[in-house]
Amino acid sequence: MTEPLHINQDRLQASLTEFAAIGATPGGGVTRLAMSEEDRQARDLLRQRMSEAGLTVRIDDLGNITGRRDGTEPGPAVILGSHLDTVERGGRYDGALGVLGALEVVRTLNDHGLSTRLPIEVVNWTDEEGARFQPANMASGIMAGAFTPDELYERRDRDGIRFLDELRRHGYLGEIANRPGPATAYLELHIEQGPALEAAGLPVGVVEGVVGIIWSKVTIAGQANHVGTTPMTLRHDALAAAAQLIAAVETLGRETPGAVATVGRLSLQPNNPGVIPGLVECIVDFCHQDEATLEALATRLLRIADDLDAQRGVTMTIERIWTSQPAPFPASTVDLVADACQLAGYPAMRLWSGAGHDAMYMQRVCPTGMIFVRSKGGLSHSEAEYSTPDDLAAGTNVLFRATLVIAEAI
Amino acid sequence: MTEPLHINQDRLQASLTEFAAIGATPGGGVTRLAMSEEDRQARDLLRQRMSEAGLTVRIDDLGNITGRRDGTEPGPAVILGSHLDTVERGGRYDGALGVLGALEVVRTLNDHGLSTRLPIEVVNWTDEEGARFQPANMASGIMAGAFTPDELYERRDRDGIRFLDELRRHGYLGEIANRPGPATAYLELHIEQGPALEAAGLPVGVVEGVVGIIWSKVTIAGQANHVGTTPMTLRHDALAAAAQLIAAVETLGRETPGAVATVGRLSLQPNNPGVIPGLVECIVDFCHQDEATLEALATRLLRIADDLDAQRGVTMTIERIWTSQPAPFPASTVDLVADACQLAGYPAMRLWSGAGHDAMYMQRVCPTGMIFVRSKGGLSHSEAEYSTPDDLAAGTNVLFRATLVIAEAI
Repeated sequence: MTEPLHINQDRLQASLTEFAAIGATPGGGVTRLAMSEEDRQARDLLRQRMSEAGLTVRIDDLGNITGRRDGTEPGPAVILGSHLDTVERGGRYDGALGVLGALEVVRTLNDHGLSTRLPIEVVNWTDEEGARFQPANMASGIMAGAFTPDELYERRDRDGIRFLDELRRHGYLGEIANRPGPATAYLELHIEQGPALEAAGLPVGVVEGVVGIIWSKVTIAGQANHVGTTPMTLRHDALAAAAQLIAAVETLGRETPGAVATVGRLSLQPNNPGVIPGLVECIVDFCHQDEATLEALATRLLRIADDLDAQRGVTMTIERIWTSQPAPFPASTVDLVADACQLAGYPAMRLWSGAGHDAMYMQRVCPTGMIFVRSKGGLSHSEAEYSTPDDLAAGTNVLFRATLVIAEAI
Repeated sequence: MTEPLHINQDRLQASLTEFAAIGATPGGGVTRLAMSEEDRQARDLLRQRMSEAGLTVRIDDLGNITGRRDGTEPGPAVILGSHLDTVERGGRYDGALGVLGALEVVRTLNDHGLSTRLPIEVVNWTDEEGARFQPANMASGIMAGAFTPDELYERRDRDGIRFLDELRRHGYLGEIANRPGPATAYLELHIEQGPALEAAGLPVGVVEGVVGIIWSKVTIAGQANHVGTTPMTLRHDALAAAAQLIAAVETLGRETPGAVATVGRLSLQPNNPGVIPGLVECIVDFCHQDEATLEALATRLLRIADDLDAQRGVTMTIERIWTSQPAPFPASTVDLVADACQLAGYPAMRLWSGAGHDAMYMQRVCPTGMIFVRSKGGLSHSEAEYSTPDDLAAGTNVLFRATLVIAEAI
């Protein structure tokens, strides 16, 4: 039996460093908003590096870049992808790792003269972050039928610049026929963006799916009044009611296994230290992998609001403003990634993704799996985002091993 | 024994209606910001009505208007005053009642050909509300030595217009020699701006003093992080910590007799529904009539913050940004107003003012008392502010009776 093959850690690291220089920020991070000048530079460089690796590059109508390595047979491709765009002052690895890790998989196959029965396609998805043009994951969402191309084209950034015009200007408006696929599977390598792997002391993890999310907007109408002249017993303080709601939401999150529950946005009126708050608006976020549990959390919120209304003489109105269904990955793909993990020499810890990814939509198109890499402090969307070279290589080795199996290396 | 004298309720009401027309808002309230064109019109009319009532009118260096009715002796005056300025979209009675009620007292004395041994001065204080030029109660504060005239002169409104220039432009920059006083006592009639009299079913109340106030700014530093990827157990949510603080502040207010405790202002960062709040700033207001209790509340806040820091791994920093000492009125003046109340035929319910008034500063200058009039729903600084004609007359009758005693009617 031969020594197991590994990806080239130094080459991967050099590749990540090369791309991190495009849009580099003084704080050590990257600003590379979708279809900005920096994004164009990174895209142009990716196409060059793809071609050098022997991939056939094509651009589709959404600006997605696909680099194809043919298989020995014409069957559906194994797609490996992620995104090169970042948020403002984001990190070096969020997205870039999945694209450049996929490129490293191809380079490693080339190094060893390996063919695969099925084709391999390396994809850079357009506008994963949604930082410049909302919503996030638009291009993969279109692949899944969640949006139409026209919806994407008409999106404008905060300066009023239209997405379609930027796509044309940078030369990234291609043909619909050039979209990735047809696919036999989709694999995405990504930093965890959470602290679970760090807490477990493990370099990589096997993702079981992307959690579902419900955002509920809660409007609390109380009675504004002078703080000094209104006795405690005669108040209808909307912020004090909100405080109880926030505490109850936190308790729900703590007591429901696998759930998180957060109030991240809140505003109040009149927001004057001398006036009892008369109106509060806040958004409650629930995430859970199981749809029934997620819906039960939203129902519990309604009951909490009813109780607080009765207790405090306020009126809470709840409007669901966003629902994202849980996207579990198929057990067969998850098992396959777990096997690849163990073959590469790492314990296969399973976890759910609490953040959205293009994989969430690709799961509607073909069997999908994800590999997470340990992220220091769980930080992401931050210039301080960091994963060690060893961990980045570990994740890429898992991606490599999984690809060998699915694409049927010869 | 003759029938006890009463003020003229219809004339008082006509007077209130006349002034409410100046700066009247479509919603039935009044906008008459200090030293605005509307304030000038009201001031000019007041001088005319004072002169018609036989008062000698003078304007001081702060723009205060004093109308003097001589006594039979040259001793110190009994000052009756309040203010004609309002907040934006304020009510018809907050301030105006005290000035026009005092004018009605003089008119009633005139009606009955009554002299007093001591002079009576009716005062319209400049800029009580602080709605245009901060802080509030500036002119009476200068009388008490809390501020200097130059501090007032240099204040600018949000359009950058300087107070001194407005004073000159409207012809209200007079001489320092024209300030009210010297005074033997100060009496102020005012709507309650709170619900205590309404709750007790009484038209008038005897004010024992103005509560002290402490404003503490609390800064809560937690850790911002992705809501979906950060387990509940690994969070340092600054808003969840703030929610516990708000609940604890409310409990402090409820459990401390005579206290109110409120968080009326709050801001958070990044204030994004998808991010755990990393930073919260809020202002805690404590009001109490007793200085030691007030300070004890502020000390309790420090301990609550320490406990929450330890529980939640956040860092709360507390800075006291404003302290207003309690201003108790002398027992002799309070008793005198209570006697006047009973003489006028009303139960003398005693209560503290939770709102600031010029009386708060005048208490440092001379013995001071206040009379409150029942305010519908406790509303003030609102177009919906309302007191019945009967209640307004009741308060003015109490002011009249107290004046007869202190000024020594002959």
